[in-house]
Amino acid sequence: MPTLGQNQYGKAETRIVKVTREGTTHHLEDLKVSVALSGDMDEVHYSGSNATVLTTDATKNTVFAFAKEYGIGSPERFGTLLARHFTESQPTLTRARIRMESYAWERIATPGEGEHSFLRDGRGVRTAQITHDREEGWEALSGLTALTVLNSTDSEFHGFLKDRYTTLPETRDRVLATDVTALWRHRWSGPQDATPDWNASHAAARGHLLDAFARTYSYSLQQTLFAMGSRVIDHRPEIDEIRLSLPNKHHFLADLTPFGMENETADGAVYFAADRPYGLIEATVLREGATARIPVDATNL
Amino acid sequence: MPTLGQNQYGKAETRIVKVTREGTTHHLEDLKVSVALSGDMDEVHYSGSNATVLTTDATKNTVFAFAKEYGIGSPERFGTLLARHFTESQPTLTRARIRMESYAWERIATPGEGEHSFLRDGRGVRTAQITHDREEGWEALSGLTALTVLNSTDSEFHGFLKDRYTTLPETRDRVLATDVTALWRHRWSGPQDATPDWNASHAAARGHLLDAFARTYSYSLQQTLFAMGSRVIDHRPEIDEIRLSLPNKHHFLADLTPFGMENETADGAVYFAADRPYGLIEATVLREGATARIPVDATNL
Amino acid sequence: MPTLGQNQYGKAETRIVKVTREGTTHHLEDLKVSVALSGDMDEVHYSGSNATVLTTDATKNTVFAFAKEYGIGSPERFGTLLARHFTESQPTLTRARIRMESYAWERIATPGEGEHSFLRDGRGVRTAQITHDREEGWEALSGLTALTVLNSTDSEFHGFLKDRYTTLPETRDRVLATDVTALWRHRWSGPQDATPDWNASHAAARGHLLDAFARTYSYSLQQTLFAMGSRVIDHRPEIDEIRLSLPNKHHFLADLTPFGMENETADGAVYFAADRPYGLIEATVLREGATARIPVDATNL
Amino acid sequence: MPTLGQNQYGKAETRIVKVTREGTTHHLEDLKVSVALSGDMDEVHYSGSNATVLTTDATKNTVFAFAKEYGIGSPERFGTLLARHFTESQPTLTRARIRMESYAWERIATPGEGEHSFLRDGRGVRTAQITHDREEGWEALSGLTALTVLNSTDSEFHGFLKDRYTTLPETRDRVLATDVTALWRHRWSGPQDATPDWNASHAAARGHLLDAFARTYSYSLQQTLFAMGSRVIDHRPEIDEIRLSLPNKHHFLADLTPFGMENETADGAVYFAADRPYGLIEATVLREGATARIPVDATNL
Repeated sequence: MPTLGQNQYGKAETRIVKVTREGTTHHLEDLKVSVALSGDMDEVHYSGSNATVLTTDATKNTVFAFAKEYGIGSPERFGTLLARHFTESQPTLTRARIRMESYAWERIATPGEGEHSFLRDGRGVRTAQITHDREEGWEALSGLTALTVLNSTDSEFHGFLKDRYTTLPETRDRVLATDVTALWRHRWSGPQDATPDWNASHAAARGHLLDAFARTYSYSLQQTLFAMGSRVIDHRPEIDEIRLSLPNKHHFLADLTPFGMENETADGAVYFAADRPYGLIEATVLREGATARIPVDATNL
Repeated sequence: MPTLGQNQYGKAETRIVKVTREGTTHHLEDLKVSVALSGDMDEVHYSGSNATVLTTDATKNTVFAFAKEYGIGSPERFGTLLARHFTESQPTLTRARIRMESYAWERIATPGEGEHSFLRDGRGVRTAQITHDREEGWEALSGLTALTVLNSTDSEFHGFLKDRYTTLPETRDRVLATDVTALWRHRWSGPQDATPDWNASHAAARGHLLDAFARTYSYSLQQTLFAMGSRVIDHRPEIDEIRLSLPNKHHFLADLTPFGMENETADGAVYFAADRPYGLIEATVLREGATARIPVDATNL
Repeated sequence: MPTLGQNQYGKAETRIVKVTREGTTHHLEDLKVSVALSGDMDEVHYSGSNATVLTTDATKNTVFAFAKEYGIGSPERFGTLLARHFTESQPTLTRARIRMESYAWERIATPGEGEHSFLRDGRGVRTAQITHDREEGWEALSGLTALTVLNSTDSEFHGFLKDRYTTLPETRDRVLATDVTALWRHRWSGPQDATPDWNASHAAARGHLLDAFARTYSYSLQQTLFAMGSRVIDHRPEIDEIRLSLPNKHHFLADLTPFGMENETADGAVYFAADRPYGLIEATVLREGATARIPVDATNL
Repeated sequence: MPTLGQNQYGKAETRIVKVTREGTTHHLEDLKVSVALSGDMDEVHYSGSNATVLTTDATKNTVFAFAKEYGIGSPERFGTLLARHFTESQPTLTRARIRMESYAWERIATPGEGEHSFLRDGRGVRTAQITHDREEGWEALSGLTALTVLNSTDSEFHGFLKDRYTTLPETRDRVLATDVTALWRHRWSGPQDATPDWNASHAAARGHLLDAFARTYSYSLQQTLFAMGSRVIDHRPEIDEIRLSLPNKHHFLADLTPFGMENETADGAVYFAADRPYGLIEATVLREGATARIPVDATNL
C-alpha cells in the first residue's frame, strides 16, 4: 500500500490591497499571499473525507478579514497573525506557512492636493515567509527578488580551470549584471520573542545588498555573492542566515572587427545582452555557529 | 493567382547595452531594437530569390556597429540613424521601421568611489518607433508602457446605461488603477526639420501623463484618459496626436459582511485586486486640425 | 482644444468555459472573449457623463448569458451573436468588435465509463475577431497563434545582398522553425449572407498551413510564408486575405571544432536554439482582386 | 566571521536541439539543460580565486559536445552522462545536478515525402533531474509539468470544516481542473544498477497519472492527488516516491439569476475560469517503507 508523505494545501496568490486613510493622505499596502496548511490530513487523501479540512476559500476570506481587522503593517507581522490563527483555531491544523510578496508604491506628487496618487515602484519585490509548526515552532524568512543591478566595470574573470571544453577567454574588465533573489532567516523564534522592526530591518538588509554589490571589486560572481551575504550577516544581528541566487546576466562584447571597428571595454563598449543560457550562482552565508535551514532551492519559489 | 500584399521583415528584439565612460563615471544605455524593412520583395516571396534581401543578421550587426560608431543618445535619434541607413544604402529597401524599448537605470550611490553601479528602474518602459518611407517620408512616435498607477479616491462611477445584463452597483468612491500604455506622434517630419530634444520631450510628456492622472477627479476612466491625452497636447507643441490604452485594473471591495465586519471605502478598506477580465479603455487625442495616423491597436504591440 | 479621435472600450479577457451534456458524454468549449465597443462616446471622455455607456461589467455578463442561452458553437458564431446584440440593442453603440481565443481539449480515453475527462491540447490556439459596424457592415477574421513547427531539412538560404555589415555565411541545409501566427479574412459579409461552416473552415485552413509549411522546399522564410498563405487562398474560396507573422526561430549549429569534433548538418547535428533576437517575417497574401483590410500589425495583438 | 554554507553554480537553461537522420526520416530531441556543480569552492567565494572553478561556459559546451558524441536518448540517460563527467573529470567537483526539460514534437504527415517536418506537442513538458554526489551516490528524478486536465463531472466537495470565515457552499457536482506537476524518484541507485527504459517508464507513469485523474470519482482534490500518486507506485516497481503539486483551477458557475436564467450543472452550465487566487494541493506518495527524499517545494522549480 502506498502511503502519504508530507502534504500541504491552501489558497495561493490572493492579491490584496489595503488603503489606510489619514485625512486626505492615504497609505497603500499591496500583497500577494499564499497559505499552506498541514496537519491531520490522512483521510482527505485516502477517502476524500473533508472533516478535518478548512477550505482554501476560508483561508482566502481570512486574509481579507484579518487585513481589515488587524491591519497589515509588514508582511512578516501579517504572516505571523495568519499563521497563528490557523494553527491555534483548528485542532486539525498543526502547521501553517504564509508566503508573501509585497509591492512597493511611491507617491505621485500633487502639491496643494490630497496625497492619494501612487506609482508602482518596480525596483524589486519584497518577499517573506512565516511558518508556525506546533512542534517545531516559528520561523521567519524575509527576502527580495527581481532586483536588477549592473556594474559596468570592476569585474574580472580569469585563473579558472581549463578542461577540454573550455574556450572562454579570460577577461580583466567585464560587465557584471544580475537579478538579485535573496532570502534571509531571522533569529526571531516567535511572537513571545522580541520582534524586530520588520520594515526597518528589510530596508537595511536591502541597502547592504546593494551597497556590497556596488562596492565589491569582483573576481567572480561567487565572491560578490559572498560579499553581499556577509555584509548582511555582519551588520544585522537579527539575521542568522541568508541564501542568494544570482543569475549571471551575460553581456557579451559585440564583435565589430568584421566592420573594421574596435569595441574595447576601456573606451566604453557595446554589448549584446543575452537571455539564455545564463550562469546561475547560488549559496548560503551563515552567521558563525548558525545552522543552515533555508532549503537549497528556496529562492526559486 | 494569390498576390502579395504588404510585407516587412527584419531582426526583432536585439538587446543592446552601451556603456559610455567619462573617467570613472559611467553612463548606461539599454535598448531593445526591432527592425522591419520593406521594398522590392516580390521575388523572395514568389520564388525564394534573395537577391534584394539584406539579411536580418546584417540588420542586427548594423544596430551594434551604429551604436558604437554614432552613439545612441535617445531611441528616437538612434532609430532615425538606422532607418535612414537602410533606406538610403540599399536601392531595394524603400521603407524602414525601427521599434525600440528603452530601459532606465538609476545609480547606486557609492560615495568616494567611481560611479559605475546601477539599479534597473522598473517604473515603466520608454518606447519609440521611427519610420522612414521614401515616398511617405518620416514619422516619429514616442511612448511608454507598463507604468502602473493608482488613485485611492477621487473616482466615481454612476449614471451609466442599464440594460438587462447590467448588475454593477453605482459607486461614489472607488480605487482607480491602470497600467498606462501611451504612444504619441511628433509633428517632426524628418531630419531636415528642427529636431526636438527627444529626451526632454519624453520626460515632460511622461510627467504630464502622471500629473493629469493624479489630479483628475474622475467620473470615468475615459474622462481620465482624455485629461491625460489633452494635457500632453496642450503643453507639448511638438506633439500632435496621442493614443492611450488603459486597462481598468479592478479593485473590488472584499465582502466582509458574512463575518460581521464593515468594509467601507471612507474608513480605508480592503480590496481584492483582480487579474482578468478587466475593462480596457482606448482612445486617440488629437491637436485640433491634426490627422489621426496612429493605428487603433498600435499600443498593444 | 484637443479633440477626441477613434476610441473603444469594453471588457477584455473574459474566460468562459461551457460544458454541454449528452448523457454521460460531455463536450467542452473554452474561450477568452474581449469586447470593444464604439459609438456616441464624446461626453464620457469630455465630462465623464456615462449616460451613453454600457458598463464593461454588463458586457461581461452578456458573454456568460449568451453562452448559456444561445450556445457557442464556434468563436465566429458566438462573436456574431454578441456583436449584433451590442449594436442593435443600444442606440449609442454603433460598432462592436469581439475578439476571441479558443482552446482545444482532447478526450482522455476511459473505456467503459462516461466521457467527461479532458486534456488540454497545446498545439496552437484558435483565434477569431468579429466586427459589426452599423455603417461599414460586418467583418469576420479567423486565425491561429502559437503553432510551433520545424523542418529539419529542405531549407537553404543564400544569394542574399551583401553590405558592409553582412557576415552571415550562406547555407544549403538548415533547420527552419517558426511559431505560426495567422489571421485570415472571410468573404462573408454578414449574417444575411451564406455562413461558412466555421469549424470546418478553420480546420481546413489550419491543415493547409501545416501541409504547405512541411512540403515547401524553402529558399527563404518569405517563400515558405507565401506558399502557406497562397495554399489557403487557393483551396478555400471563402477566404479572401490572409496575414502571416512568422518569427525565424534560429537554430545555430553548435561550434564543436575546438573540441576536435565535426557538427555537420548532413550527419545529423546539434543546434543551439536561440531566443532573441530573431528574424520576423510578415506578409499579407490576397485573392486576386481582393482589397487588403487586415492591418499590418494585426497578428501581434 | 560569516561562513559559507551549501553552494552550487553552473549554466542554466541551455537550449539544445538534436537532429538524427535515418535516411530521409529525421528524429528530433529538444531539451533545456541546467547544470549545477558543487565541490571545493570556498576560495572562489572568499577571495575570488577561480582555481577550482570549471567555467559555466565550459559546462554549456559540454552539453553540446556530449549530445553530438554520445547522443541524448532520454533526459535521464543524458543527465547521467553529464553528471558523471563532471564529478569524475574534475577533482574539485564532488557533486553535479543536471536538470532538464524535454519538449515533445509530433510528425506532420507528408505522405510520399521524407519525414522531417514536426509540430510541437504542447500537452505537458517532461522533466528530469539526475544528481551524482561522490559521497551520497546517485539520484534520478523524472517528472512532468504543465499538463492541463479537466473533469466536467464526478467531483463533489462537502463535509468540510466550517469556521467563522467559511462561506463556501457545499457542492455535489463541480468541474475539477488542474495543471499537473509531478516529480517521481526512481529506485535506481546509479549506472552500476540495472537501468530502467527511461522513455517507456515515463510514458507509462504519465499514462497512469492521466488515467487515475480521469477515473477517480472525487470528493476532494487531495483524494484525486493520492489516487494519481498511488496508481504510479502500484504499477511501476521502479518508482519509490512521487510528489504532486496540483493547483485547483477554479471554475465558478456564472450567476445568471439576475437575468432570469438558471445555470445548473446538470443541464450543462457556463463557468467563469478564474486565474488567481487558486487552491494549491501538494503531497508526496511513497512506496511502503521508502524514505521521502523529494523536497517539499521541488515541484515548483
